[in-house]
Order: sequence, then structure tokens, then C-alpha cells
Amino acid sequence: MIGRLNHVAIAVPDLAAASARYRDLLGAQVGPPQALPEHGVTLVFIDAGNSKVELLEPLGADSPIAAFLARSPGGGMHHICFEVPDIRAAAATLAAGGARILGDGTPRTGAHGKPVLFLHPKEFDGTLIELEEV
Amino acid sequence: MIGRLNHVAIAVPDLAAASARYRDLLGAQVGPPQALPEHGVTLVFIDAGNSKVELLEPLGADSPIAAFLARSPGGGMHHICFEVPDIRAAAATLAAGGARILGDGTPRTGAHGKPVLFLHPKEFDGTLIELEEV
Repeated sequence: MIGRLNHVAIAVPDLAAASARYRDLLGAQVGPPQALPEHGVTLVFIDAGNSKVELLEPLGADSPIAAFLARSPGGGMHHICFEVPDIRAAAATLAAGGARILGDGTPRTGAHGKPVLFLHPKEFDGTLIELEEV
Repeated sequence: MIGRLNHVAIAVPDLAAASARYRDLLGAQVGPPQALPEHGVTLVFIDAGNSKVELLEPLGADSPIAAFLARSPGGGMHHICFEVPDIRAAAATLAAGGARILGDGTPRTGAHGKPVLFLHPKEFDGTLIELEEV
């Protein structure tokens, strides 16, 4: 079912500082910040060629990463995202297998404008997994 | 400097159970377990096509992931690994820029038999970054 590793997302307390470290210390290809108020984050893509790293900074009062940063103020790895060809088929297979899909259990539109779902980290070794239809 | 995202490593308390979940629930391509006593882990590769996920279970008394699992008994994302063409040049650039390299500051042989170094997570938003010469 799952295909490519689309991205690894890292929650950061200071996006400008984090971007500068990746660019200046690691020589990474760091894109411009993109504010996504409807998703409660400002993000920066780091292009690794084969995959991407996303740096996420909270935006607004209801940011989905605010609680994560309250627990880990210095930041940390937040989720990994795999591509799937059919998000509704993936959701049905996962629900039938006992995996818990966050929210109301149905796919929604993700930060890239594509259908996504998130799986409860308890079933996957403390790792928040996003599936994105590509 | 950094190139491809070589892998994302996830520390897990039960490698067989974690492997079964990735295979059966996510339909992932899960390899056989590989015991690496000299690195203190048993690992399984998940082939995502463009990159890999490594599931790591502690092996032996001095496992480098034992402390992580003591803090997070359910498991969690442990590190990300980027490829670099020249690990010694990378180490010199990073040290000059103020990044801290774990251990004695020099590259060592990693779990894949290639030269690696790990960067202190404090400088990188709580994220442990491995660089591997490929």
C-alpha cells in the first residue's frame, strides 16, 4: 500500500533560525517560508533530492503543533509521510485492520492541497504517520 | 553539502510486532531482521522506493537506543540520515560553523559499514541528524 517517503516533518520553535542552520551549516536546499493559516503552520521545504524535510513553525492560536512544542520546546521530529495511490482505500484497509485514524476517520485536505490522513502514534511505535494521496 | 535522505530511524520496543504492523497494516516492503551486535541494535529496513525507514530494537546491554526507549517506552522517531559525498569535509565544515559532533568529533563506521557522524540535537531543533558518506 504505502509508496514513497514523501517527507519528514520537524516542529521547530524558530523557523528562520532553523532554516538558517540547515542552509548555512548543512548546505541544504532550503525553500522560502510558506504561511498556511488554515493549517496553523508556517513551513519551509528542504529538498533532499529523493525526498523532503519540512520544518514547521506554529501559526495562529490553534496550531496543531502547539501542544507538541509545549511538551518539547526545543522542537523535534513530528511525523513522517508516505504516499498512497488511493487514500479512501487506504483508510478502509487500515480501519479494518484496527488502526486508528485521527479526527473523524475520514481523509481531509492536507497542507499540500491533497487528501491526507494521520494514524494514531500508539499503533506505530510512537510515530505519527501521515498518508497522502499522490 | 547534504544530499539524499538516506533513512529515517524509528526506535521500537518490539521489532517483530512493529515489522508486522508495517507489513500487514501499511502493506510496506519489510526486510528481514539484521542483528548488529557491534552497534547494539537489531534493525529492519522498510523500502519506500525513494528512501528507507529503519526500525531499531535494542540489542545487548550497551545499546545506543536503550536510553531513548527508557524515556519513550512506546518507541519514537530516533534520527534522520542524510548522505554526504565526503564525511571528513562535512565534519570540518560543521565544526567550523559551531555544530557539535557526538563522540570524539571524528567520523566512525556506521551500521551500514560506511563512515558516519551524528550531530547534537540541540543545534538542530531536537532532531538527531546522522550524516553518512555514500
